[in-house]
Amino acid sequence: MKLLQTETLQSAREKLLEFMKGKQDTVIIDLIDAEGLLIAEDIISTCDIPHFRRSTVDGYAVVSRDTQGASESIPAFLKKIEEVSMGCAAKSSLKNGECAYVPTGGMIPDGADAMVMIEFCEPFDKNSMAVYESVSTGRNIVNIGEDVENGGVILKKGTKLRPQEIGALASAGFSKIPVFKPMKLTIISTGDELVPTDKLPEAGQVRDINTCALRSLAKKRGFEIVSTYVLKDEEDLLRATVSEAMEKSDIVAVSGGSSQGNKDITAKILDELSEPGVFVHGISLKPGKPTILGYDDKSSTALIGLPGHPVAAMLVFELIAVWIKNQLTGQAEEKCVYANMKTNMASAPGKTTCQTVRLIESENGYIAEPVFGKSGVMSTLTSADGYTLIDMNKEGLHKDELVKVWLI
Amino acid sequence: MKLLQTETLQSAREKLLEFMKGKQDTVIIDLIDAEGLLIAEDIISTCDIPHFRRSTVDGYAVVSRDTQGASESIPAFLKKIEEVSMGCAAKSSLKNGECAYVPTGGMIPDGADAMVMIEFCEPFDKNSMAVYESVSTGRNIVNIGEDVENGGVILKKGTKLRPQEIGALASAGFSKIPVFKPMKLTIISTGDELVPTDKLPEAGQVRDINTCALRSLAKKRGFEIVSTYVLKDEEDLLRATVSEAMEKSDIVAVSGGSSQGNKDITAKILDELSEPGVFVHGISLKPGKPTILGYDDKSSTALIGLPGHPVAAMLVFELIAVWIKNQLTGQAEEKCVYANMKTNMASAPGKTTCQTVRLIESENGYIAEPVFGKSGVMSTLTSADGYTLIDMNKEGLHKDELVKVWLI
Repeated sequence: MKLLQTETLQSAREKLLEFMKGKQDTVIIDLIDAEGLLIAEDIISTCDIPHFRRSTVDGYAVVSRDTQGASESIPAFLKKIEEVSMGCAAKSSLKNGECAYVPTGGMIPDGADAMVMIEFCEPFDKNSMAVYESVSTGRNIVNIGEDVENGGVILKKGTKLRPQEIGALASAGFSKIPVFKPMKLTIISTGDELVPTDKLPEAGQVRDINTCALRSLAKKRGFEIVSTYVLKDEEDLLRATVSEAMEKSDIVAVSGGSSQGNKDITAKILDELSEPGVFVHGISLKPGKPTILGYDDKSSTALIGLPGHPVAAMLVFELIAVWIKNQLTGQAEEKCVYANMKTNMASAPGKTTCQTVRLIESENGYIAEPVFGKSGVMSTLTSADGYTLIDMNKEGLHKDELVKVWLI
Repeated sequence: MKLLQTETLQSAREKLLEFMKGKQDTVIIDLIDAEGLLIAEDIISTCDIPHFRRSTVDGYAVVSRDTQGASESIPAFLKKIEEVSMGCAAKSSLKNGECAYVPTGGMIPDGADAMVMIEFCEPFDKNSMAVYESVSTGRNIVNIGEDVENGGVILKKGTKLRPQEIGALASAGFSKIPVFKPMKLTIISTGDELVPTDKLPEAGQVRDINTCALRSLAKKRGFEIVSTYVLKDEEDLLRATVSEAMEKSDIVAVSGGSSQGNKDITAKILDELSEPGVFVHGISLKPGKPTILGYDDKSSTALIGLPGHPVAAMLVFELIAVWIKNQLTGQAEEKCVYANMKTNMASAPGKTTCQTVRLIESENGYIAEPVFGKSGVMSTLTSADGYTLIDMNKEGLHKDELVKVWLI
């Protein structure tokens, strides 16, 4: 095992990314199951949407010139030549002096270039309408290809599929689409002190938090959970479990056993089982210093040693695993929230500080109040709305400073 | 059927809420399946967390007074009386002049009141340690109940379960928890022009977007989808479908057929099938004016007529159904994003305007650029990051004005 120096967060991320690049599997799935997933290639439309001119109102299709000067007191009189039905082609071709009824979403007849809302029209006699509004060309009409043009890119690779993207793809006729396969993750929690949630811990013991919390976080962020394990700190057991997990996972995350204490066997085992092995042991990050990163070429598995403290484990998972996933899938950065710091606060110069904050509404936007707590204390995270990253070259944040907060 | 006046958004919401109040079912589920759901009652801890004093570092438990004056050049010499193992109770009780090794997360022996990190300690002889740091009382220790106190509220009713809340509940021993049952929703899309996603639409026809997009939106917002239907605008068919859906759903949402055109049968049918019936037909909201709200006491079903245009349908679903759900479950409002308007823009005075915007990063935070588009055009929503609501009493927004943007 090589001697390793502490890495900056960015350099650690990029080293891991280098190993994992280009290894993202894709899969074709049903559109209706795709919410939250990421498009794996540019989606090109094979049709114009809409493919006929549609009305955005209930009313009368007209030749706009015919309505010039029409007003509440001086209507234009137009001959009604058709009632277009929803879902049917318009049959007529409008000439000057003519109009046709078209419902919202219905097809505009040839020759017409505007719609007058029904509120401004009145039957005059059996065959004609009085129109009380002057409309300009294109009024209340969606043109052919106005939503999406034939051959145009509907959605770019890496786009996260929100309900509106699902709708857009449905309208373009895609019922199956290529998405990035969720990365397969195994979570291993180690520690002689851990007991399951439903057991009463004795003195010195605590209930395992990490498998539950990390599983939930990873699922929320779009990972597929292969398995979770809670293990005693036994070298052989951990070796066998990691080895088996590597065959089935894209990422194996081991929490606990990564600090400098008596039982630091995680880094050794991760390095033994992989080739080229562990390449980061220690990140200049607070919390998260004892993070381990490794990679195995043969099984194409990333190995992440997370801190044992749940808060640190979750934040490091966000900052490393979720960042890697976003990079590999070309996903745009999640929207953050801007906020002004409530107080001055010192950070740890030389380390990137990941500071949890609570957001308080004010009439000038959000105020970020730091949530302090020891990293073993879950209430630090349950009372936080998000975190902000303080650059390693800064000594802290000053009151009222504008910061980016990522919601967690 | 009563003659109905246009309602304000807030009054429409509150009328519906009045009918639905107190009718939220709850259910006990496994903690690991609870991510994103809402806690149905205050969760009270039945234990202290932690229930013993824990170390936050690898190092030596000491009586802090013994380290007073210790420094890199003048260590304090302490007798090592124990090595506490992870997961085990500390056996000794420290007296002045003594210390005990404790790993991160391990139990602090009685008598000790601080931890010195291992980096500041060195073996002096077989039985004693040289300690090169002066620590104050409480240093590097998590006290009993510091995370959660016995009898304290861990999570309040209505809290949305994020991964950290799942972790906190696991640590307190809750493997099953009461959550609000997701509201059951049936989505009915009506229109003679609609064809399924996999069919090539003819002139006048379009592919159905609303069932896909609304299903996806509703799932994302925590509703349970009972069924979806795409129907022709036939009165009997719609009546039979709504009637059946009411028996199985908490909300029946019918999109299309709610504007003033020829085929406005939705409001009539919804009113016929329910008692007290339709109580809102028309909201002073843009887009979303033709929205219908009704309620049936017997089946405890809310009836929502959504606009047929997909963009309007989705925004109204957000503003009505999601708002109602949040109110009924006591959920805090979702975090929004503050942004400054890029340009002046006029709104529709007398109507609440729901304006879609794109968020652009700048060094002063987000800038909100309005996304204009006809409401039938899905690209209005796919290119938007969120929406802002412009009060009905305002005439618009001015450049640089601070607005709240809700992400969609």
